[in-house]
Amino acid sequence: MSECFYCENGNKLHSLMIEICELPCGKVYLNRDQKHKGRCIVALKDHKTEYFQMDRKESEEYFWEVSKVAEAIANLYHPDKINYATYGDSVPHVHVHIVPKYRDGLNWGTPFDDSIPKQFLQDEEYNKMIEELRKEILKLMQG
Amino acid sequence: MSECFYCENGNKLHSLMIEICELPCGKVYLNRDQKHKGRCIVALKDHKTEYFQMDRKESEEYFWEVSKVAEAIANLYHPDKINYATYGDSVPHVHVHIVPKYRDGLNWGTPFDDSIPKQFLQDEEYNKMIEELRKEILKLMQG
Repeated sequence: MSECFYCENGNKLHSLMIEICELPCGKVYLNRDQKHKGRCIVALKDHKTEYFQMDRKESEEYFWEVSKVAEAIANLYHPDKINYATYGDSVPHVHVHIVPKYRDGLNWGTPFDDSIPKQFLQDEEYNKMIEELRKEILKLMQG
Repeated sequence: MSECFYCENGNKLHSLMIEICELPCGKVYLNRDQKHKGRCIVALKDHKTEYFQMDRKESEEYFWEVSKVAEAIANLYHPDKINYATYGDSVPHVHVHIVPKYRDGLNWGTPFDDSIPKQFLQDEEYNKMIEELRKEILKLMQG
């Protein structure tokens, strides 16, 4: 699947996101563009392109992981609402964007918008977020 | 929850969508605006506002239902990709927009956009879609 940047796991992927941790069905990434503080992506480890290509067991586990990642983001950054989106017309590999929204903040009340300027962080800021998110996600996954 | 139009189940809800069927955890609606042919909504029956407020059992069932509704849309209308989104900054009740996308069609390659003109159908067209979707969803739910 060399045309799928999730499967390829190369420069294109790494220019957009940084791996936080691997879960049973999903891989969790921190979005490099942090204009919505805490924004993450959970990509399915298998290359499937629609939710209904997952069997029931994989579907159950994958969406549970999505929920736990959202909960970790909520616990750490206290958004007022979390948005979730799977688009992928051009990158159909199943992945969910988990986008924390803040009242009176960017795109509140409208879909998050990737056409507005990105906000990148310093490496030490990414590292701090990755470390605290990994810790919180793994804690929540242990139930 | 009189401020939640999903819980209220009144005129506001009915102006936007038409009920197709009720599943164990979700209620399935046909979106009145059919500029993306087959667009549906699956709302959680419980009033919860984040995925992680569902316990594991409800989460497993709800997302399975979302997948089966998407599969029914795929079987009937043959979109090239399905998009899924939960926004809800102003209507936080958990619901997923299931939006079929068609190559070279509206919003292909970009998030679906509710600010562009809506496309309403005649009642008999809605009724035909509701009937075929209900039949297909219930068939898929039976496995």
